[in-house]
Amino acid sequence: MAERSEQPDLSTGAEVVVNRLLAEGVDVCFANPGTSEMHFVAALDAAPAMRPVLCLFEGVATGAADGYARIAGSPAATLLHLGPGMANGLANLHNARRAFSPVVNVVGDHATYHQPLDAPLESDIDALGHWAHGSVHRPESAAGLDAAVHAAVQSATGTPGSVATVILPADYSWGSAPQNPLSDKASEQPSPRTEEELDIAAAADLLRGQGQRAVMLLGGAATDTDGLRAAARINAATGARVLVETFPARLARGQGVPPIERLGYLAEQATQQLSGATHLVLVGAKSPVSFFAYPGKPSVLVPDGADVQTLNIDDLVGLAEKLGGAEPVAPEPEPAELPTGPLNPQTLAQVIAALLPEDAIISDEANTSGVFLPAATASAPRHDVLTLTGGAIGQGLPVAVGAAIAAPHRPVIALQSDGSAAYTISALWTMAREQLDITVVILNNHAYAILQLELLRVGSQADGERSRSLLDLSRPDIDFASIAQGFGVPATRATTAEELADQFRAALDEPGPHLIDAALPTWSPG
Amino acid sequence: MAERSEQPDLSTGAEVVVNRLLAEGVDVCFANPGTSEMHFVAALDAAPAMRPVLCLFEGVATGAADGYARIAGSPAATLLHLGPGMANGLANLHNARRAFSPVVNVVGDHATYHQPLDAPLESDIDALGHWAHGSVHRPESAAGLDAAVHAAVQSATGTPGSVATVILPADYSWGSAPQNPLSDKASEQPSPRTEEELDIAAAADLLRGQGQRAVMLLGGAATDTDGLRAAARINAATGARVLVETFPARLARGQGVPPIERLGYLAEQATQQLSGATHLVLVGAKSPVSFFAYPGKPSVLVPDGADVQTLNIDDLVGLAEKLGGAEPVAPEPEPAELPTGPLNPQTLAQVIAALLPEDAIISDEANTSGVFLPAATASAPRHDVLTLTGGAIGQGLPVAVGAAIAAPHRPVIALQSDGSAAYTISALWTMAREQLDITVVILNNHAYAILQLELLRVGSQADGERSRSLLDLSRPDIDFASIAQGFGVPATRATTAEELADQFRAALDEPGPHLIDAALPTWSPG
Repeated sequence: MAERSEQPDLSTGAEVVVNRLLAEGVDVCFANPGTSEMHFVAALDAAPAMRPVLCLFEGVATGAADGYARIAGSPAATLLHLGPGMANGLANLHNARRAFSPVVNVVGDHATYHQPLDAPLESDIDALGHWAHGSVHRPESAAGLDAAVHAAVQSATGTPGSVATVILPADYSWGSAPQNPLSDKASEQPSPRTEEELDIAAAADLLRGQGQRAVMLLGGAATDTDGLRAAARINAATGARVLVETFPARLARGQGVPPIERLGYLAEQATQQLSGATHLVLVGAKSPVSFFAYPGKPSVLVPDGADVQTLNIDDLVGLAEKLGGAEPVAPEPEPAELPTGPLNPQTLAQVIAALLPEDAIISDEANTSGVFLPAATASAPRHDVLTLTGGAIGQGLPVAVGAAIAAPHRPVIALQSDGSAAYTISALWTMAREQLDITVVILNNHAYAILQLELLRVGSQADGERSRSLLDLSRPDIDFASIAQGFGVPATRATTAEELADQFRAALDEPGPHLIDAALPTWSPG
Repeated sequence: MAERSEQPDLSTGAEVVVNRLLAEGVDVCFANPGTSEMHFVAALDAAPAMRPVLCLFEGVATGAADGYARIAGSPAATLLHLGPGMANGLANLHNARRAFSPVVNVVGDHATYHQPLDAPLESDIDALGHWAHGSVHRPESAAGLDAAVHAAVQSATGTPGSVATVILPADYSWGSAPQNPLSDKASEQPSPRTEEELDIAAAADLLRGQGQRAVMLLGGAATDTDGLRAAARINAATGARVLVETFPARLARGQGVPPIERLGYLAEQATQQLSGATHLVLVGAKSPVSFFAYPGKPSVLVPDGADVQTLNIDDLVGLAEKLGGAEPVAPEPEPAELPTGPLNPQTLAQVIAALLPEDAIISDEANTSGVFLPAATASAPRHDVLTLTGGAIGQGLPVAVGAAIAAPHRPVIALQSDGSAAYTISALWTMAREQLDITVVILNNHAYAILQLELLRVGSQADGERSRSLLDLSRPDIDFASIAQGFGVPATRATTAEELADQFRAALDEPGPHLIDAALPTWSPG
């Protein structure tokens, strides 16, 4: 470790990890990164000796590391995204352990101060490392990273070889290491509060008294039509703001359903939505925390000094009745117009909204490309939206399968981004086998666009070819129509709004599954 | 549970589980079964109210159960194959837990008496259930199954919903329940022995004295060329039998390498190979146990009364030198002839063997269709074979990726069965992205053939359409060439031995990845 001591201030923790891996002879990294690994990705640009290999699924990354070890006789690293990412790689780590292959997993984790908040991707990573009978190295500070990686490589390359896991919290990754311990600032996050439950009378008093200084956050069963209508009435009666949690399990939408805004995924957005609130009333939702931690940004989204209380979901309608707010009046839906011309996230959303059938179920893993969908579909026919509750991508196609089995007479529409689709693509075969009435629209922007955005948001300066290559899906482009046909699902490719409309209409008209590969412009954060 | 009491002797444990699920209102099962779940599969034939839905990947099954629950408001079951199968489903169980979706996992496990033997698929299933913040129900006997399933459904459907896991050991599954506790026979398995390590002198004395009553079992680094040649010399000098462990991590093969037999995957076969042995000497291998347990068959494969000892791998060559056995003389390789006519497992193996390039790496997940490969490739040019060490299928394509990265100048050939290929199919994209020199041959027999075989082997009487449907991949047929093209890998389809030869030769000649979808006859156990 002596070689680093002369440049005490120049390295991020992620750079220390990359350099230590290289110093130990680990120069290949099979990667399926996410937000918490963006500084590691950025560090690759300054480390040309490290070869990053992008895999579309963590099981590919861990299996590749096993194969590498069996041939090279030395370990490769994997780069995995928190517990769910490591979970996807577990089965092949099991195979690797049975092969006595040395494998060094670098598993990104939430920033240390973000971990107690139980953000969606939080889980017990250590347990997964131990499950694979491997050593788990969780440094206690950024200064401990160098030693942790060294210990992991030593452990993996012992006799016999084994699986070693280094857990790399995001704040260590972006912090300086090894000389600079974490600033105290990171630990100054307010801790989550314990919440008092309101009864109907107390809730009525509070909301009447506070008006728009109060925010009701709806989740769980409160996001059905009745819950949303009750919330709208409460808003009408008191002025209290109402919001839906960021990723509801099942959200009623469309005509007759008040289009209540969701709390933003981006902490900046959520902070703005909650600003000025002195009272937060949770109705089936958890106290809001940001999805990830970011340098210098708060993880707890409750405004400073605000009180947090809860209301039982079962009391929501009763509260609306007690307050006597007017039933929301839906505006007369305007006939949606079909757009023409180039296909982009906006015209795509317009086509979906204009042609959405009554009582549809949308499995929504559209991610970045879906940004225009909520506004466009607000006055579409009544439908339900199923969202990515736990943040473990690759959920959309399987969830569509389950929804179609559960409700065989409702049209199911899977709005699926390209990167996430690749995780569990064989769900298409089950759609074909069961002849499920599912229309899959792949929002194909040829990129892990969310990560290109996150790479900027975590404050990384990465703009090199190596780091960008891990976020780019365009070499080669994935032809989802060809893959779908291979799994037995009829498929087409849409390159204009008109083509999408024609193909979407035809897919809905015909029973059984269909896939439309919607060619969006290649996403770039610039 | 009263409804079962009038038919005390008619139900297997698996039937009790299926019937209890139905009685609790769980009538859909998203399934990705394996050997240990075959009695559950068989039980479906007698339970027309239960709808089985085959998924090609466990993450599809668990995600589908989540989607089902969000729409139906009640749980579906999943059927998962031991720890590695559950591991593949974990990420979507994480999403399900965040959605508070009720999900009831039925996870098959080894027979209880097989579990302490650390067979390849053994792992800590409970830890995975707990990782998903769910309840884990591990009945203590077959008589406890009914109550365990009841408790799991109750737990999953509590407020809020959660993930509950029932662990279903194979012996409980095939045993009678709830009235008949397990026969004592199952517990009479001999326990694994502790092994004494031999030095070179003691090993030489033992093997000289015992001759063919001694068996050396080679594993780990002992399966390289030097190890295998030393073992062959020891055999020549003493008559001691030598075998390679069933699933070696890396096995040297071909010209100049003694073609030492592998211990059979089927316990019947292994028992025969080891019969008459009074001494077993392990060299880098574990004491042999059967992969799964089967009713009335032994799990420990060491013959009754045999001594088990070990020899350090580093002493293998020294022992051969001390014993002075002759160097094995390789027979002059006969020029391999290319077969003509229909493509079947035998002609496929002949084509691969005849055209195998020097110094190739074979990633072997050919499973049932690969039965003729070892004999055919014994006198092919020198090559290495990487096998499925941990039994968690879906390893072959990722391992090929890793091997090609590790050895960019060696041709890599992935011999991949169709069912297993679907697990981690997106590995093809990484092959294209990295332009890896990999030739993938899909041994496409349109079936989980190994499971059709296992269904018979576990002594199940299943022959109904419902159980067979879970082992059949022909509705719809998977067109791997189309899928490969979708992921950017040039692909062809071979339907005769001549076509396979032409396409295999062309794929090897051209740099970069290629896939050949080899259309084998549809497998059927009849």
